[in-house]
Amino acid sequence: MELKHPYLLFLGDVADSLAAKTALGIVDWRPNWCVGQWRLEGCKADAGLPEMDARAAAEAGAKTMVVGAVNAGGVLPAHWVASIVAALEAGLDVATGLHQKLADVPEIRAAAEKSGGRLLDVRHSTEKFATGKGTKRPGRRLLTVGTDCSVGKKYTALALESAMREAGMDADFRATGQTGVFISGRGAAIDAVVADFISGAAEWLSPAADPNHWDVVEGQGSLYHPSFAGVSLGLLHGAQPDAFVVCHEPTRTKMRGVEHPIPSIRDVIDLTIRCGSLTNPDIRCVGLAVNTAALGEAEARAFLDQVSGEHGLPASDPVRFGVTAIVEELRKSFA
Amino acid sequence: MELKHPYLLFLGDVADSLAAKTALGIVDWRPNWCVGQWRLEGCKADAGLPEMDARAAAEAGAKTMVVGAVNAGGVLPAHWVASIVAALEAGLDVATGLHQKLADVPEIRAAAEKSGGRLLDVRHSTEKFATGKGTKRPGRRLLTVGTDCSVGKKYTALALESAMREAGMDADFRATGQTGVFISGRGAAIDAVVADFISGAAEWLSPAADPNHWDVVEGQGSLYHPSFAGVSLGLLHGAQPDAFVVCHEPTRTKMRGVEHPIPSIRDVIDLTIRCGSLTNPDIRCVGLAVNTAALGEAEARAFLDQVSGEHGLPASDPVRFGVTAIVEELRKSFA
Repeated sequence: MELKHPYLLFLGDVADSLAAKTALGIVDWRPNWCVGQWRLEGCKADAGLPEMDARAAAEAGAKTMVVGAVNAGGVLPAHWVASIVAALEAGLDVATGLHQKLADVPEIRAAAEKSGGRLLDVRHSTEKFATGKGTKRPGRRLLTVGTDCSVGKKYTALALESAMREAGMDADFRATGQTGVFISGRGAAIDAVVADFISGAAEWLSPAADPNHWDVVEGQGSLYHPSFAGVSLGLLHGAQPDAFVVCHEPTRTKMRGVEHPIPSIRDVIDLTIRCGSLTNPDIRCVGLAVNTAALGEAEARAFLDQVSGEHGLPASDPVRFGVTAIVEELRKSFA
Repeated sequence: MELKHPYLLFLGDVADSLAAKTALGIVDWRPNWCVGQWRLEGCKADAGLPEMDARAAAEAGAKTMVVGAVNAGGVLPAHWVASIVAALEAGLDVATGLHQKLADVPEIRAAAEKSGGRLLDVRHSTEKFATGKGTKRPGRRLLTVGTDCSVGKKYTALALESAMREAGMDADFRATGQTGVFISGRGAAIDAVVADFISGAAEWLSPAADPNHWDVVEGQGSLYHPSFAGVSLGLLHGAQPDAFVVCHEPTRTKMRGVEHPIPSIRDVIDLTIRCGSLTNPDIRCVGLAVNTAALGEAEARAFLDQVSGEHGLPASDPVRFGVTAIVEELRKSFA
């Protein structure tokens, strides 16, 4: 899926910032791609962009309106439909990460047919993937993996892309989830792919490249999560990473949505190497990215020192302390 | 997906038996469910059933016509459409395992709307699955796993169901592939499920049961197959097996469709226990099922003796020598 930017971010009338986290993530990482935000009466989220409607955004050069907000259930509220129709009438494509398909709403389908605008349902890939082959491709790859879901794998991958580019490395973030697709303008929501094609989709989204080029692939789930480990394993095999970074949240006691305990960082490193070596025998861990938001600064530094010592790897909180040490380890390891 | 039997097996005009292997598998394992076969002029496959068309089958009590043959590409040949329409007109449901959906053919959709007959596309599950939870369910489960794809996991599971029932055990085969769904009348083609729901689908198809009941779950792929390992892992986590049987083909040198070597039986046992213990800490291997079709009888027996000794487990070729020894091991191990 390829999205054209610049974007107009549609925030609807959501009740808080959390409901607009997709839009806020896009602004964080791709501010230059965002010409404005469109908010309806009563909207409590604010991405800090110029306010404009679809027509004004089109005049300002926008190509796609991204519905960057969700309500509970992932369903499209009926009173947002008019805004989406207006965006199509203004000549924009419309992209969403909702479960509900835009084309299933008759007014939206009709408006798209009339305007020729594209309806981009990021959760419903239209790409026809091949099954994965596991054949080694040129180019280098880094995958973020996790001790759980929602521990910062996307953030870490984006922070690494940014720091690697600053260090003069040739690096591209590769999205495997819906927010990531909006941020990179390309990718696939890999958890929405048909099961037979998980590793094939991962191969597609990180194609053969220059030997010194790095793809920084956004991880999904965890090999130890009983709901989603199949996705994580297919992604690991398809991404065939040379390097991986383990993402972790130290205060969590159970994995998200289930009763299982969090695995140890050591267990995740070991199983990732064991399984990942199927498609890349040289796979190695180059760092630990710890979300320390729940800890005070002294506590956070102490925890990072401890796990860094235990594993002989750089450990940092990407949000708090950046990822420079991990990029240094990567450069040294692949010099 | 639930199919009503008895079945009429539609063989079309396929050029050989291999193209009708779905129909032949159904007759092998569920002869009492099959009232007849419908073959078109020139058909080279024969399931050995009474010849009849849809109307005669309906009179004989058939409830579903199973399209038990495929042509290359999994597309429905245009000249089979009239037979499918006739089946619907005779009051039957129609089931296929083709990639192409029956309802995408206008004549078929119209006939189904008129007759009220169901169009059952086994490859396209309409079941809404939840994500897997990994919570231990009552009842016992056995999963067949493989060193590769197409090494006899379905056959072994069906042979085990049959032998376990003969031994007085309460056992049900649980289908995870299209032929298996036709044979059991229920199940899901797990490789066609959306990636996020692999383990959830496995939990659905093997629900909580009586503590002494055994579900014998058909395995898919291999944890070592770079195309499909994600499916295998999600199925392993969702099935939460107490016991597993490793299926193997000793003369193969590469995994199907890729360039990777076949893993050792030991590797498969170890990784299955390591990953499977996430949802069932007591998981254990109870036997080896080896497809020795490519070996002479003396060679086959020697190979089975060798691997049985190496692993301290019963080893048999289910087709050639049955699975009694594996069922004995299972009974002993779970007495």
